[in-house]
Amino acid sequence: MSPATLHVVGVGPGDPELLTLKAARVIEQAAVVAYFCRHDRPGHARTIAAAHVSEGQRELRFAYPFTTERTVQDPTYQPDMSAFYDECAAHIHGELHEGRDVALLCEGDPFLYGSAMYLFDRLHREVPCAVVPGVTGMGGCWAQAGQPMVHGDDVLCVLPATMPEPELAAWLERADAAVVMKLGSNLPKLREALATAGRADEAIYVERGTQPDARVMKLSEKEGAAPYFALALVPGRKDVR
Amino acid sequence: MSPATLHVVGVGPGDPELLTLKAARVIEQAAVVAYFCRHDRPGHARTIAAAHVSEGQRELRFAYPFTTERTVQDPTYQPDMSAFYDECAAHIHGELHEGRDVALLCEGDPFLYGSAMYLFDRLHREVPCAVVPGVTGMGGCWAQAGQPMVHGDDVLCVLPATMPEPELAAWLERADAAVVMKLGSNLPKLREALATAGRADEAIYVERGTQPDARVMKLSEKEGAAPYFALALVPGRKDVR
Ligand SMILES: C[S@@+](CC[C@H](N)C(=O)[O-])C[C@H]1O[C@@H](n2cnc3c(N)ncnc32)[C@H](O)[C@@H]1O
Ligand SMILES: C[S@@+](CC[C@H](N)C(=O)[O-])C[C@H]1O[C@@H](n2cnc3c(N)ncnc32)[C@H](O)[C@@H]1O
Repeated sequence: MSPATLHVVGVGPGDPELLTLKAARVIEQAAVVAYFCRHDRPGHARTIAAAHVSEGQRELRFAYPFTTERTVQDPTYQPDMSAFYDECAAHIHGELHEGRDVALLCEGDPFLYGSAMYLFDRLHREVPCAVVPGVTGMGGCWAQAGQPMVHGDDVLCVLPATMPEPELAAWLERADAAVVMKLGSNLPKLREALATAGRADEAIYVERGTQPDARVMKLSEKEGAAPYFALALVPGRKDVR
Repeated sequence: MSPATLHVVGVGPGDPELLTLKAARVIEQAAVVAYFCRHDRPGHARTIAAAHVSEGQRELRFAYPFTTERTVQDPTYQPDMSAFYDECAAHIHGELHEGRDVALLCEGDPFLYGSAMYLFDRLHREVPCAVVPGVTGMGGCWAQAGQPMVHGDDVLCVLPATMPEPELAAWLERADAAVVMKLGSNLPKLREALATAGRADEAIYVERGTQPDARVMKLSEKEGAAPYFALALVPGRKDVR
């Protein structure tokens, strides 16, 4: 028997209405629905897609072996995550070889910093894979903020806030427009980098974009800590009209 | 009477199933559907959204005053386009003040190099505006290519191929991952820039991603001219597993 198909499905930035028609259909038709989550949480992508998952579907819940407190710098991080992804891939592989299609849910778009990529990387040479692109977190955030990002010849840089401050500052200085992802505990470093780049006043802070508890404000007015589901927008400089 | 609402709606990269549930609903509910097009064409965004537009809806067709042969470098380009956008904005303004909601369709996501931004810029201080984000052209293309783009700390740069070759080469050299938009007649320049940056072998060419006539190949194997609806993907370098 030839294996079934792994569908890697982007479910968008948070508003359940921002799923695509295709994502809704593919999730509804899959025998198995798989997703990542924290051990103590229902799983964000699963929550977004809830209206399209039914009782008859098998669910594969992949609970991360640890939370965001353990950082990438920790020498045990990479090998432990890698072993975890190997295990998840093996589970999916098993379902596919029993003839059951799997829909692997992913927040935003799967190929933009999505964990689903690590499973795709492990499986795509062995089993049929299809990818359903999704509205990205940043796309949800700039729509929520009513903030056009790039006009004309503007260059957009998408920057993980996890990099060292001097690098981040250099990128912020040369980019026309920028999106800074993965804020969380990196917020103080981002503030410094924006100041170094002379762009502290331009940045907009968006938390949980497109969700009911979304917040939008100037980054300079944001007080306190940022959650993981937050990013900063620096709109393009060019004023083409 | 208070004005109705302008909905700026992303319709995704081409596959009509890649519209969001929200875009479908907003388009179906609007009294007026507006879109840009070439004078001799039906309008790409209008074609993508066709299943959600009905006979009873009023349509505003905004035909560009000229085609892509006239370039931004031409001194008449900016003033003529600006006057054209003023006119489109005035039309929409009129509809809204007669109490009719307008859905302005936009390929991909409206705030990523979308013409709809120029109307949003003109109108958002005067009338209620709402933005429905969409799956971007680049998101459709990397899904079509089955090509994960950014892992871990990778930086993604989105580059218009319209910039001068030395600049383009410098960006391609420092970016981890890159997307080069607006290929068309800029393809030979992009080839040079990729060679200068030492990345000619990494680039993937995608034409009309997610559409029935989509084409994906290594850029080095692409022969002949590129259409406007084509882009190049340079996946991230980091090999986090
Ligand atoms: C591991 S990345 C995953 C990105 C996802 N695949 C996408 O396409 O947006 C997680 C980061 O995305 C950003 N993010 C995603 N969705 C968001 C939202 N709705 N509001 C704010 N930030 C968001 C945050 O910066 C978060 O730290
Ligand atoms: C003016 S920009 C508009 C981008 C759009 N707002 C978006 O979110 O993708 C037009 C450029 O987008 C790229 N593009 C958009 N959709 C595409 C698709 N389906 N396939 C290939 N390229 C696409 C091409 O490079 C094209 O020149």
